[in-house]
Amino acid sequence: MKKVRAENYGIRPDTGADHGEDFRRMFRENPQGAAFLLQPGRYDFYRENALHRELFLSNSDDVPERNLALLLEGMENAVLDGGGAEFVFHGPMMPVTLLDCKDVTVKNLAIDWEIPLSAEGEVREAAGNEIQVFIDPKKYPCRAENGALIFTGENWEEPLRHAVEFDVSTGKVRYDTGDCFPKVEAAELGEGLFRLKGDFSRLPQPGNVLVLRHSPRVHAGIFADSCREVSFEHLNIHSTGGLGVLCQFCEDLNFVDVNLVPDRKNGRRFLSGHDDGLHLSNNRGVITVEGCCFEGLMDDPLNVHGTSVRIAEMMDSHTLRGEFVHPQSLGFSRWALPGQEVSFLNRRSLKSLGTAIVKSFSLLSKGEFVIAFDGKIPEEIGAGDALENLTNTPSLICRRNLFGSGRARGILVSTPKPVLIEQNLFESSGCAILLAGDANQWYESGSCRDVVIRDNVFRDCCLTSDYQFCDGVISICPEVPEPDADAPFHSGIRIAGNVFHLYDAPLLYAKSTAGLLFSGNRLFRSHAYKPRHPQKALFTFDCCSDVNVGKNWVTGKLVSDEISIARMEEKEISCEDYEISVEQL
Amino acid sequence: MKKVRAENYGIRPDTGADHGEDFRRMFRENPQGAAFLLQPGRYDFYRENALHRELFLSNSDDVPERNLALLLEGMENAVLDGGGAEFVFHGPMMPVTLLDCKDVTVKNLAIDWEIPLSAEGEVREAAGNEIQVFIDPKKYPCRAENGALIFTGENWEEPLRHAVEFDVSTGKVRYDTGDCFPKVEAAELGEGLFRLKGDFSRLPQPGNVLVLRHSPRVHAGIFADSCREVSFEHLNIHSTGGLGVLCQFCEDLNFVDVNLVPDRKNGRRFLSGHDDGLHLSNNRGVITVEGCCFEGLMDDPLNVHGTSVRIAEMMDSHTLRGEFVHPQSLGFSRWALPGQEVSFLNRRSLKSLGTAIVKSFSLLSKGEFVIAFDGKIPEEIGAGDALENLTNTPSLICRRNLFGSGRARGILVSTPKPVLIEQNLFESSGCAILLAGDANQWYESGSCRDVVIRDNVFRDCCLTSDYQFCDGVISICPEVPEPDADAPFHSGIRIAGNVFHLYDAPLLYAKSTAGLLFSGNRLFRSHAYKPRHPQKALFTFDCCSDVNVGKNWVTGKLVSDEISIARMEEKEISCEDYEISVEQL
Repeated sequence: MKKVRAENYGIRPDTGADHGEDFRRMFRENPQGAAFLLQPGRYDFYRENALHRELFLSNSDDVPERNLALLLEGMENAVLDGGGAEFVFHGPMMPVTLLDCKDVTVKNLAIDWEIPLSAEGEVREAAGNEIQVFIDPKKYPCRAENGALIFTGENWEEPLRHAVEFDVSTGKVRYDTGDCFPKVEAAELGEGLFRLKGDFSRLPQPGNVLVLRHSPRVHAGIFADSCREVSFEHLNIHSTGGLGVLCQFCEDLNFVDVNLVPDRKNGRRFLSGHDDGLHLSNNRGVITVEGCCFEGLMDDPLNVHGTSVRIAEMMDSHTLRGEFVHPQSLGFSRWALPGQEVSFLNRRSLKSLGTAIVKSFSLLSKGEFVIAFDGKIPEEIGAGDALENLTNTPSLICRRNLFGSGRARGILVSTPKPVLIEQNLFESSGCAILLAGDANQWYESGSCRDVVIRDNVFRDCCLTSDYQFCDGVISICPEVPEPDADAPFHSGIRIAGNVFHLYDAPLLYAKSTAGLLFSGNRLFRSHAYKPRHPQKALFTFDCCSDVNVGKNWVTGKLVSDEISIARMEEKEISCEDYEISVEQL
Repeated sequence: MKKVRAENYGIRPDTGADHGEDFRRMFRENPQGAAFLLQPGRYDFYRENALHRELFLSNSDDVPERNLALLLEGMENAVLDGGGAEFVFHGPMMPVTLLDCKDVTVKNLAIDWEIPLSAEGEVREAAGNEIQVFIDPKKYPCRAENGALIFTGENWEEPLRHAVEFDVSTGKVRYDTGDCFPKVEAAELGEGLFRLKGDFSRLPQPGNVLVLRHSPRVHAGIFADSCREVSFEHLNIHSTGGLGVLCQFCEDLNFVDVNLVPDRKNGRRFLSGHDDGLHLSNNRGVITVEGCCFEGLMDDPLNVHGTSVRIAEMMDSHTLRGEFVHPQSLGFSRWALPGQEVSFLNRRSLKSLGTAIVKSFSLLSKGEFVIAFDGKIPEEIGAGDALENLTNTPSLICRRNLFGSGRARGILVSTPKPVLIEQNLFESSGCAILLAGDANQWYESGSCRDVVIRDNVFRDCCLTSDYQFCDGVISICPEVPEPDADAPFHSGIRIAGNVFHLYDAPLLYAKSTAGLLFSGNRLFRSHAYKPRHPQKALFTFDCCSDVNVGKNWVTGKLVSDEISIARMEEKEISCEDYEISVEQL
């Protein structure tokens, strides 16, 4: 592999100059077999010098074009080795974009913003319906205007949208706060000091830090579309203007020591990425996530799913017009490729009524497409039902990661391929693991068929705040309007050899799931927080079958030891007194 | 086994009357083969009606006599089943005493005090050199007198001795406070409100709770001396006037679901036992500790050791005069029995210079004894050197316990017999596990030869405060004044398959240890606290040999990845890149 030194393209650290175009030229001129080597130091990138490109990003706001710094397009067999370089961005933009690449590694880089696209403030006073917050004007310039708190950056302005409170004594999202921050009216009281008035159902604690969310979800930290064999190694992403790393329509992805964590060089910070950590949608092959840290994120650290789409009109027995429903997931020109397998889902039961091989796929607009199949579309399928692409589903190995405290959950995973989640540490403020799936609201698809969750540690801070679908520390919660006991949405889920430290009742919630084993786990009671969850049973099963709650070990008196069931018979639950070893799974 | 109903002895719950003598009579009249059954409910016991007995308790203050409630003496094949009864004590006394029993089980009981022998107060204000503390006069009556804070109970008064601060937001001993509470001068400001003046190096936080320690360490919650085959099951001990459960000179002990935890019936409480949880000294056979919880203790949850003694005078080649040195461990008339094996230790190196079989042992006073041996005493041994009893050393199985937050460490263990510590959860504010041993200060003896520490979870609150000998989350820290590399104090220690969540550098400290394996562990970085420990390396080895730091897994950037060595050669450390499975240990 040939070594390409960035300095030969005029790219030098610590100059303050924007080398975005130099980088892009370097990549264009060496499309194959190159190791790009950087000198350590700081590299700056400005929105003004960015490349503009129309790109459709999964689960991100739809905008006419994105601002790109580094662009690797159609490259093969390449390594971008930052050598410890720090990339600092100015304004909304996408640091690294990979399009149609193969066998590419990005490593040894840090990514941050001069003025991050989220802000922080310290609560100084709180009483009644108002709080006072100090927002360091050097780090996060802002002003109050007509009651709005307006953050200002390098040629951008954005109003406050939402805030999340971090407990400074623990470094975690404060107990029982979650998404409860209200709409506020702002007034400036002095240099950096603001009064925020609102209907505070839970008043923030003076001394605590608010992560102040502004700006839309437009640019991922790293974006990869339609790539194969991509590795990300030893990356520290300290802030983003959207998802952390977004990979879509890719095959075989590898993440090692990729950290979405607050920058702590200049004192304690709580914010890291603007939204999710690793958002991996519509991929295939094997995804490996190992030794990564996620802390201070404003949405789920790891989200693996497909995108389901709605049938708008049956055109003939082999052809239909479909639409992308979720407004943040549009314009996927490669949602299906000829030869891929697509499943037809009943919109109420989410039951597959058959599959077919794609013959052709073409967009009519960013919201609509026509798809034709080699075989006939099942007769029961009609407008309003859904499609999912079964070829674009990956298997996942997720090992020894730290799912630290942040807004929302730990892992979301929805894929029929094998999933192994082992030896991780969870400190999520919502549920630790969510197996979701729906075709009615988020249109994030994927029935699970083979999931092993073993040898993980779930800390007592899990499930200390409320977010959607968090009905247990592990929540198997597909959105199935009318679950069909004979066609369970998820199946083949084994949870064994884990340590759960529980302050509240709900441990495991499962809906529309067949073949569920929970055995050989150790449950310890915590008194660190007051129980608060509306789910009052240890286990809740709704429309499930073949559930085995085997031998588990309890230390201390749990809040509940009940099993609650609905829409199923008791005989579907067995409590066999045997312990399964982790190796047997 | 015959059923003996307590009601037949006039023992009824919820009367407020003292049934201590009725209990004692019931036990006296049924010395063999009885299951004693209680009705559920509350049983009260008053110091005024206690039995008084001269007893020498290991590691407890020496007093002329102890106040006993229940006494089981010389009993065989008995079960005391509380059936969920709650024993409530009034004044300093020992709830349950077992002397010379065999095959006895005590189960299904709770123990608490009407006015606990430790108190709690809430910090209301704190500034400069004074704090204001509210102490609920109904729960913990007290007054200020000549600057002293005097707690008053049912015919007792005791001055404040010490205090430990609990962080109410986490339920744990507050970070970096430990034993730093100063001597204070008290004044009463109003009903229950006291001003405490002192040299506060770390000012308590308003809103936090202080556990206010008063009273001497006189009465264990449960005391067993010279018993065999004793089981304690399903016990909740919420306060004590000394050690939680003290067993000495016993053989084969079993603890299942024995909890030294705060009572939480009437709101949140932080205090539990006055000192240690399970203090097990000079025992033999197998000790099993499973599924127990320890929270809010004012000293170590589990302490397993022998008592070493000092040689005062060599009387002849086979006989010597010895002395008990630690003022809390005196008068052991059975420190050695004929036929037991005693080791002779050099006081500087703690090296054994030989062993001999005991021929006779007799006390001269509570502080002195004469011991004679079948064989000759080694010639190098003389006055000032030490003896330890090798027969009175137990093996230990410690599994699935919760070592919650409290003052001091998690487990102290010093025994040459096999030790297995597995599947526990540690939240200690000091080090989680201490392998100690000395014959110069505490005279708690026992070189370890075979210790497996596997599959445990060590939370990031471990080692957040300073206490003696806490030089790593696992601290192998015998007090050897002049360690001899050829005669290591401890050996055969394997630490594998554990999860450590580390906010600071020191993970493992070992001194005078040979044969130490640390492999297959997962280390996660925590940012919940600021690093503070004077030990700056991840591993510190002092005068050790045959150390293997094998393949371990790191997630996040640790504070340190260094190995620091002293008084040894680098070649004694190997870093083999292999992972050992927990089963291979």
